[in-house]
Amino acid sequence: MTIKERKTIRKYKEDDVSPELLDELLTTAARAATMGNIQLYSAIVTRSEEGKAALAPFHFNQPMVKGAPVVITFCADFNRFTEWCNQRQATPGYDNFLSFINAMSDTLLFTQNFCTLAEEVGLGTCYLGTTVYNPMGIIETLRLPRLTFPVATITLGWPDEDPAQTDRLPLEGIAHSEYYHNYTDDDIDRIYSRKESLPENKTFVEINDKLTLAQVFTDCRYTKKDNEAMSAGMIEALKHQGFLE
Amino acid sequence: MTIKERKTIRKYKEDDVSPELLDELLTTAARAATMGNIQLYSAIVTRSEEGKAALAPFHFNQPMVKGAPVVITFCADFNRFTEWCNQRQATPGYDNFLSFINAMSDTLLFTQNFCTLAEEVGLGTCYLGTTVYNPMGIIETLRLPRLTFPVATITLGWPDEDPAQTDRLPLEGIAHSEYYHNYTDDDIDRIYSRKESLPENKTFVEINDKLTLAQVFTDCRYTKKDNEAMSAGMIEALKHQGFLE
Repeated sequence: MTIKERKTIRKYKEDDVSPELLDELLTTAARAATMGNIQLYSAIVTRSEEGKAALAPFHFNQPMVKGAPVVITFCADFNRFTEWCNQRQATPGYDNFLSFINAMSDTLLFTQNFCTLAEEVGLGTCYLGTTVYNPMGIIETLRLPRLTFPVATITLGWPDEDPAQTDRLPLEGIAHSEYYHNYTDDDIDRIYSRKESLPENKTFVEINDKLTLAQVFTDCRYTKKDNEAMSAGMIEALKHQGFLE
Repeated sequence: MTIKERKTIRKYKEDDVSPELLDELLTTAARAATMGNIQLYSAIVTRSEEGKAALAPFHFNQPMVKGAPVVITFCADFNRFTEWCNQRQATPGYDNFLSFINAMSDTLLFTQNFCTLAEEVGLGTCYLGTTVYNPMGIIETLRLPRLTFPVATITLGWPDEDPAQTDRLPLEGIAHSEYYHNYTDDDIDRIYSRKESLPENKTFVEINDKLTLAQVFTDCRYTKKDNEAMSAGMIEALKHQGFLE
Protein backbone atom coordinates (compact mmCIF):
# COMPACT_ATOMS: atom_id res chain seq x y z
CA MET A 1 0.00 0.00 0.00
CA THR A 2 1.34 3.44 -0.85
CA ILE A 3 0.88 6.62 1.16
CA LYS A 4 -1.78 7.76 -1.31
CA GLU A 5 -3.97 4.74 -0.67
CA ARG A 6 -3.32 4.29 3.03
CA LYS A 7 -6.05 3.93 5.58
CA THR A 8 -6.15 3.11 9.26
CA ILE A 9 -6.58 -0.61 9.96
CA ARG A 10 -8.18 -1.56 13.27
CA LYS A 11 -8.88 -5.28 12.70
CA TYR A 12 -6.03 -7.74 12.24
CA LYS A 13 -5.64 -11.39 11.31
CA GLU A 14 -4.28 -13.71 13.98
CA ASP A 15 -1.05 -14.20 11.99
CA ASP A 16 2.02 -12.96 13.77
CA VAL A 17 4.37 -10.24 12.55
CA SER A 18 7.77 -11.92 12.53
CA PRO A 19 10.48 -10.46 14.75
CA GLU A 20 12.81 -10.35 11.74
CA LEU A 21 10.39 -8.23 9.72
CA LEU A 22 9.71 -5.96 12.66
CA ASP A 23 13.43 -5.47 13.26
CA GLU A 24 13.94 -4.60 9.61
CA LEU A 25 11.12 -2.04 9.67
CA LEU A 26 12.40 -0.37 12.84
CA THR A 27 15.97 -0.31 11.53
CA THR A 28 14.94 1.30 8.26
CA ALA A 29 12.54 3.75 9.95
CA ALA A 30 15.52 5.10 11.87
CA ARG A 31 16.78 6.67 8.62
CA ALA A 32 14.41 9.57 9.44
CA ALA A 33 16.02 12.93 10.11
CA THR A 34 17.08 13.29 13.76
CA MET A 35 18.50 16.16 15.80
CA GLY A 36 22.29 16.10 15.57
CA ASN A 37 21.95 12.42 14.62
CA ILE A 38 21.25 11.66 18.29
CA GLN A 39 18.09 9.56 17.70
CA LEU A 40 16.04 10.79 20.62
CA TYR A 41 13.58 7.89 20.76
CA SER A 42 12.94 4.37 21.93
CA ALA A 43 10.37 1.88 20.66
CA ILE A 44 8.79 -0.47 23.20
CA VAL A 45 7.41 -3.56 21.48
CA THR A 46 4.56 -5.30 23.30
CA ARG A 47 3.67 -8.79 22.09
CA SER A 48 2.53 -10.55 25.29
CA GLU A 49 -1.17 -10.81 26.16
CA GLU A 50 -0.41 -9.53 29.66
CA GLY A 51 1.48 -6.56 28.28
CA LYS A 52 -1.35 -5.58 25.94
CA ALA A 53 -3.95 -6.07 28.66
CA ALA A 54 -1.93 -3.78 30.95
CA LEU A 55 -1.75 -1.03 28.29
CA ALA A 56 -5.37 -1.29 27.10
CA PRO A 57 -7.04 0.78 29.87
CA PHE A 58 -4.78 3.76 29.10
CA HIS A 59 -6.10 3.64 25.55
CA PHE A 60 -9.74 3.59 26.74
CA ASN A 61 -9.82 -0.18 26.08
CA GLN A 62 -10.03 0.35 22.34
CA PRO A 63 -10.16 -3.21 20.95
CA MET A 64 -7.14 -2.73 18.65
CA VAL A 65 -4.76 -2.87 21.60
CA LYS A 66 -5.61 -6.41 22.66
CA GLY A 67 -6.56 -7.43 19.12
CA ALA A 68 -3.26 -6.59 17.40
CA PRO A 69 -0.35 -9.04 17.40
CA VAL A 70 2.03 -6.15 18.08
CA VAL A 71 1.65 -2.87 19.94
CA ILE A 72 4.52 -0.39 19.76
CA THR A 73 4.84 2.56 22.11
CA PHE A 74 7.15 5.18 20.63
CA CYS A 75 8.85 7.19 23.37
CA ALA A 76 10.75 10.44 23.34
CA ASP A 77 14.05 9.45 24.92
CA PHE A 78 16.77 11.70 26.30
CA ASN A 79 17.68 9.09 28.91
CA ARG A 80 19.98 7.00 26.72
CA PHE A 81 21.89 10.03 25.46
CA THR A 82 22.14 11.44 28.99
CA GLU A 83 23.50 8.11 30.26
CA TRP A 84 26.12 8.21 27.52
CA CYS A 85 27.10 11.77 28.48
CA ASN A 86 27.35 10.81 32.14
CA GLN A 87 29.74 7.99 31.29
CA ARG A 88 31.87 10.15 29.03
CA GLN A 89 32.84 12.98 31.36
CA ALA A 90 30.24 15.23 29.74
CA THR A 91 27.60 17.24 31.63
CA PRO A 92 24.21 16.77 29.97
CA GLY A 93 21.59 19.54 30.05
CA TYR A 94 18.47 17.90 28.67
CA ASP A 95 16.13 18.04 31.67
CA ASN A 96 14.10 20.86 30.15
CA PHE A 97 11.10 21.56 27.95
CA LEU A 98 12.95 22.25 24.69
CA SER A 99 14.68 18.89 24.98
CA PHE A 100 11.29 17.21 25.32
CA ILE A 101 10.07 18.99 22.18
CA ASN A 102 13.22 17.97 20.31
CA ALA A 103 12.83 14.36 21.40
CA MET A 104 9.11 14.33 20.61
CA SER A 105 9.90 15.62 17.10
CA ASP A 106 12.53 12.95 16.48
CA THR A 107 10.15 10.30 17.77
CA LEU A 108 7.23 11.25 15.55
CA LEU A 109 9.33 11.40 12.38
CA PHE A 110 10.59 7.92 13.24
CA THR A 111 7.02 6.75 13.99
CA GLN A 112 5.63 7.99 10.68
CA ASN A 113 8.51 6.39 8.76
CA PHE A 114 7.75 3.15 10.55
CA CYS A 115 4.08 3.31 9.55
CA THR A 116 4.90 4.00 5.91
CA LEU A 117 7.34 1.10 5.77
CA ALA A 118 4.92 -1.25 7.52
CA GLU A 119 2.15 -0.32 5.09
CA GLU A 120 4.49 -0.82 2.13
CA VAL A 121 4.85 -4.50 3.05
CA GLY A 122 1.09 -4.87 3.49
CA LEU A 123 0.77 -4.47 7.25
CA GLY A 124 -2.00 -2.36 8.75
CA THR A 125 -1.48 0.27 11.42
CA CYS A 126 -3.64 2.28 13.77
CA TYR A 127 -2.22 5.41 15.42
CA LEU A 128 -3.45 5.80 18.99
CA GLY A 129 -3.57 9.46 19.95
CA THR A 130 -4.63 8.36 23.43
CA THR A 131 -0.95 7.90 24.32
CA VAL A 132 -0.68 11.49 25.58
CA TYR A 133 -4.06 11.38 27.36
CA ASN A 134 -2.91 9.07 30.16
CA PRO A 135 0.87 9.24 30.04
CA MET A 136 1.51 8.34 33.71
CA GLY A 137 -0.25 4.98 33.36
CA ILE A 138 1.85 4.10 30.33
CA ILE A 139 5.02 5.38 31.99
CA GLU A 140 4.45 3.05 34.94
CA THR A 141 3.39 0.07 32.85
CA LEU A 142 6.38 0.29 30.52
CA ARG A 143 8.77 1.30 33.35
CA LEU A 144 9.82 4.42 31.48
CA PRO A 145 12.68 6.15 33.30
CA ARG A 146 13.26 9.86 33.81
CA LEU A 147 13.84 11.78 30.54
CA THR A 148 11.65 9.43 28.52
CA PHE A 149 8.01 10.02 27.59
CA PRO A 150 5.44 8.06 25.53
CA VAL A 151 4.26 10.13 22.57
CA ALA A 152 2.71 7.68 20.09
CA THR A 153 1.33 4.16 20.03
CA ILE A 154 0.85 2.04 16.93
CA THR A 155 -1.12 -1.17 16.77
CA LEU A 156 0.23 -3.38 14.02
CA GLY A 157 -0.88 -6.50 12.18
CA TRP A 158 -1.98 -8.05 8.91
CA PRO A 159 -5.24 -6.37 7.84
CA ASP A 160 -8.51 -8.21 8.39
CA GLU A 161 -10.69 -5.40 7.04
CA ASP A 162 -10.65 -3.09 4.05
CA PRO A 163 -12.39 0.13 5.04
CA ALA A 164 -13.03 3.06 2.71
CA GLN A 165 -10.55 5.92 2.84
CA THR A 166 -11.68 8.80 5.00
CA ASP A 167 -12.09 12.32 3.60
CA ARG A 168 -9.50 15.08 3.79
CA LEU A 169 -9.83 18.84 3.57
CA PRO A 170 -9.06 20.39 0.17
CA LEU A 171 -5.45 21.54 -0.17
CA GLU A 172 -6.42 25.22 -0.07
CA GLY A 173 -7.57 24.51 3.49
CA ILE A 174 -4.10 23.58 4.73
CA ALA A 175 -1.57 25.32 2.43
CA HIS A 176 -0.61 28.99 2.58
CA SER A 177 1.60 30.97 0.22
CA GLU A 178 4.35 33.12 1.82
CA TYR A 179 2.45 33.79 5.05
CA TYR A 180 -0.58 32.55 6.97
CA HIS A 181 -3.77 33.80 5.36
CA ASN A 182 -6.41 33.70 8.03
CA TYR A 183 -9.76 32.21 7.07
CA THR A 184 -12.78 34.28 6.16
CA ASP A 185 -16.28 32.96 6.84
CA ASP A 186 -16.55 32.03 3.17
CA ASP A 187 -13.23 30.18 3.30
CA ILE A 188 -14.45 28.13 6.25
CA ASP A 189 -17.73 27.31 4.51
CA ARG A 190 -15.91 26.19 1.37
CA ILE A 191 -13.18 24.22 3.14
CA TYR A 192 -15.57 22.28 5.38
CA SER A 193 -18.49 21.85 2.96
CA ARG A 194 -17.50 18.42 1.71
CA LYS A 195 -16.89 17.07 5.22
CA GLU A 196 -20.23 18.41 6.42
CA SER A 197 -22.06 16.90 3.45
CA LEU A 198 -20.85 13.33 3.95
CA PRO A 199 -23.69 10.94 4.91
CA GLU A 200 -21.69 9.41 7.79
CA ASN A 201 -21.11 12.85 9.28
CA LYS A 202 -24.76 13.79 8.93
CA THR A 203 -25.56 10.59 10.81
CA PHE A 204 -23.10 11.57 13.58
CA VAL A 205 -24.92 14.87 14.01
CA GLU A 206 -28.27 13.12 14.17
CA ILE A 207 -27.45 10.31 16.57
CA ASN A 208 -25.71 12.75 18.92
CA ASP A 209 -28.72 15.05 18.76
CA LYS A 210 -26.56 18.04 17.72
CA LEU A 211 -27.17 20.99 15.43
CA THR A 212 -23.81 20.90 13.62
CA LEU A 213 -20.92 18.52 13.01
CA ALA A 214 -18.62 20.88 14.88
CA GLN A 215 -20.77 20.38 17.99
CA VAL A 216 -20.13 16.63 17.79
CA PHE A 217 -16.43 17.44 18.20
CA THR A 218 -16.72 20.12 20.87
CA ASP A 219 -19.50 18.53 22.95
CA CYS A 220 -18.85 14.80 22.57
CA ARG A 221 -15.47 13.83 21.17
CA TYR A 222 -12.95 16.48 22.28
CA THR A 223 -14.43 18.60 25.05
CA LYS A 224 -12.85 21.62 26.70
CA LYS A 225 -13.25 19.96 30.10
CA ASP A 226 -11.43 16.78 29.05
CA ASN A 227 -8.71 18.73 27.25
CA GLU A 228 -8.04 20.88 30.29
CA ALA A 229 -7.92 17.90 32.65
CA MET A 230 -5.59 16.02 30.30
CA SER A 231 -3.40 19.11 29.82
CA ALA A 232 -2.87 19.20 33.57
CA GLY A 233 -2.09 15.48 33.56
CA MET A 234 0.40 15.84 30.76
CA ILE A 235 2.18 18.74 32.45
CA GLU A 236 2.38 16.75 35.70
CA ALA A 237 3.80 13.79 33.77
CA LEU A 238 6.41 16.00 32.06
CA LYS A 239 7.49 17.24 35.48
CA HIS A 240 7.60 13.68 36.79
CA GLN A 241 9.82 12.61 33.89
CA GLY A 242 12.20 15.53 34.41
CA PHE A 243 11.28 17.61 31.34
CA LEU A 244 9.65 20.53 33.19
CA GLU A 245 10.46 22.25 36.45
CA MET B 1 15.13 7.47 -3.30
CA THR B 2 13.62 5.10 -0.75
CA ILE B 3 13.53 5.61 3.02
CA LYS B 4 16.38 3.11 3.36
CA GLU B 5 18.71 5.18 1.21
CA ARG B 6 17.61 8.63 2.27
CA LYS B 7 20.00 11.34 3.37
CA THR B 8 19.69 14.98 4.18
CA ILE B 9 20.33 17.26 1.19
CA ARG B 10 21.55 20.78 1.93
CA LYS B 11 22.63 21.91 -1.56
CA TYR B 12 20.10 22.34 -4.34
CA LYS B 13 20.14 23.04 -8.06
CA GLU B 14 18.62 26.31 -9.22
CA ASP B 15 15.75 24.45 -10.91
CA ASP B 16 12.37 25.26 -9.45
CA VAL B 17 9.99 22.81 -7.85
CA SER B 18 6.78 23.22 -9.83
CA PRO B 19 3.68 24.36 -7.94
CA GLU B 20 1.77 21.40 -9.41
CA LEU B 21 4.25 18.89 -8.03
CA LEU B 22 4.33 20.62 -4.66
CA ASP B 23 0.54 20.61 -4.46
CA GLU B 24 0.44 16.93 -5.28
CA LEU B 25 3.02 16.12 -2.58
CA LEU B 26 1.19 18.14 0.07
CA THR B 27 -2.17 16.63 -0.90
CA THR B 28 -0.84 13.08 -0.69
CA ALA B 29 1.10 13.75 2.54
CA ALA B 30 -2.23 14.63 4.16
CA ARG B 31 -3.17 10.94 4.04
CA ALA B 32 -1.18 10.63 7.30
CA ALA B 33 -3.15 9.64 10.38
CA THR B 34 -4.72 12.65 12.09
CA MET B 35 -6.63 13.13 15.34
CA GLY B 36 -10.34 12.63 14.67
CA ASN B 37 -9.56 13.41 11.02
CA ILE B 38 -9.30 17.09 11.97
CA GLN B 39 -5.90 17.72 10.27
CA LEU B 40 -4.38 19.99 12.86
CA TYR B 41 -1.75 21.57 10.64
CA SER B 42 -0.97 24.21 8.05
CA ALA B 43 1.95 24.36 5.62
CA ILE B 44 3.37 27.78 4.79
CA VAL B 45 5.22 27.70 1.48
CA THR B 46 7.94 30.33 1.07
CA ARG B 47 9.26 30.82 -2.47
CA SER B 48 10.12 34.54 -2.55
CA GLU B 49 13.67 35.74 -1.92
CA GLU B 50 12.35 38.27 0.62
CA GLY B 51 10.42 35.59 2.43
CA LYS B 52 13.43 33.31 2.70
CA ALA B 53 15.68 36.18 3.77
CA ALA B 54 13.20 37.07 6.51
CA LEU B 55 13.14 33.51 7.83
CA ALA B 56 16.89 32.85 7.59
CA PRO B 57 18.01 34.57 10.83
CA PHE B 58 15.64 32.41 12.88
CA HIS B 59 17.42 29.38 11.46
CA PHE B 60 20.85 30.78 12.39
CA ASN B 61 21.32 31.81 8.75
CA GLN B 62 22.01 28.26 7.68
CA PRO B 63 22.62 28.56 3.93
CA MET B 64 19.90 26.03 3.00
CA VAL B 65 17.17 28.55 3.78
CA LYS B 66 18.17 31.09 1.17
CA GLY B 67 19.67 28.41 -1.11
CA ALA B 68 16.56 26.25 -1.51
CA PRO B 69 13.90 27.06 -4.11
CA VAL B 70 11.21 26.21 -1.54
CA VAL B 71 11.06 26.50 2.24
CA ILE B 72 8.05 25.01 4.00
CA THR B 73 7.15 25.84 7.58
CA PHE B 74 4.86 23.18 9.01
CA CYS B 75 2.65 24.62 11.73
CA ALA B 76 0.50 23.03 14.39
CA ASP B 77 -2.89 24.61 13.71
CA PHE B 78 -5.95 24.64 15.96
CA ASN B 79 -6.97 28.05 14.58
CA ARG B 80 -8.77 26.78 11.48
CA PHE B 81 -10.75 24.17 13.41
CA THR B 82 -11.59 26.71 16.13
CA GLU B 83 -12.82 29.17 13.49
CA TRP B 84 -15.05 26.44 12.08
CA CYS B 85 -16.44 25.68 15.55
CA ASN B 86 -17.09 29.37 16.19
CA GLN B 87 -19.09 29.60 12.98
CA ARG B 88 -21.09 26.45 13.68
CA GLN B 89 -22.60 27.25 17.07
CA ALA B 90 -20.01 25.05 18.77
CA THR B 91 -17.85 26.08 21.72
CA PRO B 92 -14.22 25.11 21.05
CA GLY B 93 -11.88 24.21 23.92
CA TYR B 94 -8.47 23.95 22.30
CA ASP B 95 -6.59 26.77 24.00
CA ASN B 96 -4.61 24.37 26.14
CA PHE B 97 -1.41 22.35 26.26
CA LEU B 98 -2.86 18.98 25.28
CA SER B 99 -4.31 20.54 22.14
CA PHE B 100 -0.86 21.85 21.22
CA ILE B 101 0.61 18.37 21.67
CA ASN B 102 -2.17 16.86 19.55
CA ALA B 103 -1.63 19.42 16.80
CA MET B 104 2.15 19.05 16.94
CA SER B 105 1.74 15.28 16.53
CA ASP B 106 -0.55 15.65 13.53
CA THR B 107 1.85 18.14 12.00
CA LEU B 108 4.95 16.00 12.33
CA LEU B 109 3.29 12.90 10.85
CA PHE B 110 2.23 15.08 7.91
CA THR B 111 5.75 16.55 7.66
CA GLN B 112 7.45 13.17 7.57
CA ASN B 113 5.01 11.89 4.96
CA PHE B 114 5.77 14.95 2.89
CA CYS B 115 9.52 14.30 3.11
CA THR B 116 9.15 10.66 2.10
CA LEU B 117 7.00 11.57 -0.90
CA ALA B 118 9.37 14.36 -1.94
CA GLU B 119 12.34 12.02 -1.75
CA GLU B 120 10.48 9.37 -3.76
CA VAL B 121 10.31 11.76 -6.73
CA GLY B 122 13.99 12.64 -6.38
CA LEU B 123 13.76 15.86 -4.40
CA GLY B 124 16.12 16.52 -1.51
CA THR B 125 15.04 17.75 1.91
CA CYS B 126 16.68 19.19 4.98
CA TYR B 127 14.78 19.19 8.28
CA LEU B 128 15.50 22.34 10.31
CA GLY B 129 15.16 21.62 14.00
CA THR B 130 15.86 25.30 14.62
CA THR B 131 12.14 26.00 14.09
CA VAL B 132 11.41 25.56 17.80
CA TYR B 133 14.52 27.49 18.89
CA ASN B 134 13.21 30.90 17.85
CA PRO B 135 9.46 30.41 17.44
CA MET B 136 8.42 34.03 18.09
CA GLY B 137 10.46 35.34 15.16
CA ILE B 138 8.88 32.80 12.83
CA ILE B 139 5.41 33.49 14.24
CA GLU B 140 5.78 37.19 13.47
CA THR B 141 7.36 36.68 10.05
CA LEU B 142 4.71 34.24 8.86
CA ARG B 143 1.89 36.13 10.64
CA LEU B 144 0.84 33.03 12.52
CA PRO B 145 -2.38 33.67 14.46
CA ARG B 146 -3.33 32.48 17.94
CA LEU B 147 -3.63 28.68 18.19
CA THR B 148 -1.00 28.05 15.54
CA PHE B 149 2.68 27.27 16.16
CA PRO B 150 5.65 26.49 13.88
CA VAL B 151 7.03 23.03 14.65
CA ALA B 152 9.10 21.99 11.62
CA THR B 153 10.77 23.58 8.62
CA ILE B 154 11.84 21.74 5.49
CA THR B 155 14.09 23.14 2.80
CA LEU B 156 13.30 21.50 -0.52
CA GLY B 157 14.89 21.31 -3.93
CA TRP B 158 16.54 19.13 -6.55
CA PRO B 159 19.78 17.73 -5.07
CA ASP B 160 23.08 19.28 -6.04
CA GLU B 161 25.17 17.03 -3.80
CA ASP B 162 25.34 13.35 -2.96
CA PRO B 163 26.66 13.02 0.57
CA ALA B 164 27.35 9.72 2.31
CA GLN B 165 24.65 8.39 4.61
CA THR B 166 25.24 9.18 8.26
CA ASP B 167 25.53 6.45 10.88
CA ARG B 168 22.71 5.20 13.08
CA LEU B 169 22.76 3.41 16.42
CA PRO B 170 22.31 -0.37 16.29
CA LEU B 171 18.68 -1.48 16.68
CA GLU B 172 19.34 -2.89 20.17
CA GLY B 173 20.03 0.68 21.20
CA ILE B 174 16.53 1.92 20.40
CA ALA B 175 14.19 -1.11 20.65
CA HIS B 176 12.92 -2.64 23.88
CA SER B 177 10.88 -5.82 24.37
CA GLU B 178 7.78 -5.54 26.60
CA TYR B 179 9.16 -2.77 28.82
CA TYR B 180 12.01 -0.25 28.91
CA HIS B 181 15.27 -1.96 29.79
CA ASN B 182 17.53 0.70 31.17
CA TYR B 183 21.06 0.78 29.89
CA THR B 184 24.02 -0.69 31.78
CA ASP B 185 27.47 0.80 31.35
CA ASP B 186 28.32 -2.09 29.01
CA ASP B 187 25.19 -1.43 26.95
CA ILE B 188 26.17 2.20 26.51
CA ASP B 189 29.72 1.26 25.48
CA ARG B 190 28.43 -1.22 22.93
CA ILE B 191 25.65 0.99 21.51
CA TYR B 192 27.88 4.05 21.05
CA SER B 193 31.14 2.29 20.04
CA ARG B 194 30.62 2.57 16.30
CA LYS B 195 29.65 6.26 16.47
CA GLU B 196 32.69 7.03 18.63
CA SER B 197 35.02 5.17 16.28
CA LEU B 198 34.07 7.06 13.12
CA PRO B 199 36.94 9.20 11.76
CA GLU B 200 34.71 12.28 11.32
CA ASN B 201 33.63 12.07 14.96
CA LYS B 202 37.21 11.64 16.16
CA THR B 203 38.02 14.78 14.19
CA PHE B 204 35.15 16.66 15.89
CA VAL B 205 36.59 15.77 19.28
CA GLU B 206 40.03 16.93 18.24
CA ILE B 207 39.14 20.25 16.61
CA ASN B 208 36.92 21.16 19.54
CA ASP B 209 39.70 20.25 21.93
CA LYS B 210 37.46 17.88 23.89
CA LEU B 211 38.11 14.59 25.68
CA THR B 212 35.06 12.74 24.37
CA LEU B 213 32.48 12.96 21.58
CA ALA B 214 29.74 13.42 24.18
CA GLN B 215 31.50 16.61 25.32
CA VAL B 216 31.21 18.00 21.79
CA PHE B 217 27.45 17.71 22.18
CA THR B 218 27.14 18.98 25.75
CA ASP B 219 29.74 21.75 25.58
CA CYS B 220 29.47 22.97 21.97
CA ARG B 221 26.38 21.84 20.06
CA TYR B 222 23.53 21.50 22.57
CA THR B 223 24.44 23.17 25.82
CA LYS B 224 22.40 23.23 29.02
CA LYS B 225 22.47 27.03 29.01
CA ASP B 226 21.11 27.31 25.46
CA ASN B 227 18.50 24.62 26.09
CA GLU B 228 17.24 26.36 29.20
CA ALA B 229 17.05 29.76 27.50
CA MET B 230 15.23 28.28 24.51
CA SER B 231 12.88 26.32 26.79
CA ALA B 232 11.83 29.60 28.40
CA GLY B 233 11.36 31.14 24.94
CA MET B 234 9.27 28.25 23.74
CA ILE B 235 7.03 28.36 26.83
CA GLU B 236 6.56 32.12 26.36
CA ALA B 237 5.67 31.56 22.71
CA LEU B 238 3.16 28.83 23.62
CA LYS B 239 1.52 31.28 26.03
CA HIS B 240 1.52 33.98 23.37
CA GLN B 241 -0.18 31.65 20.89
CA GLY B 242 -2.85 30.65 23.42
CA PHE B 243 -1.70 27.09 24.12
CA LEU B 244 -0.59 27.62 27.72
CA GLU B 245 -2.00 29.70 30.55
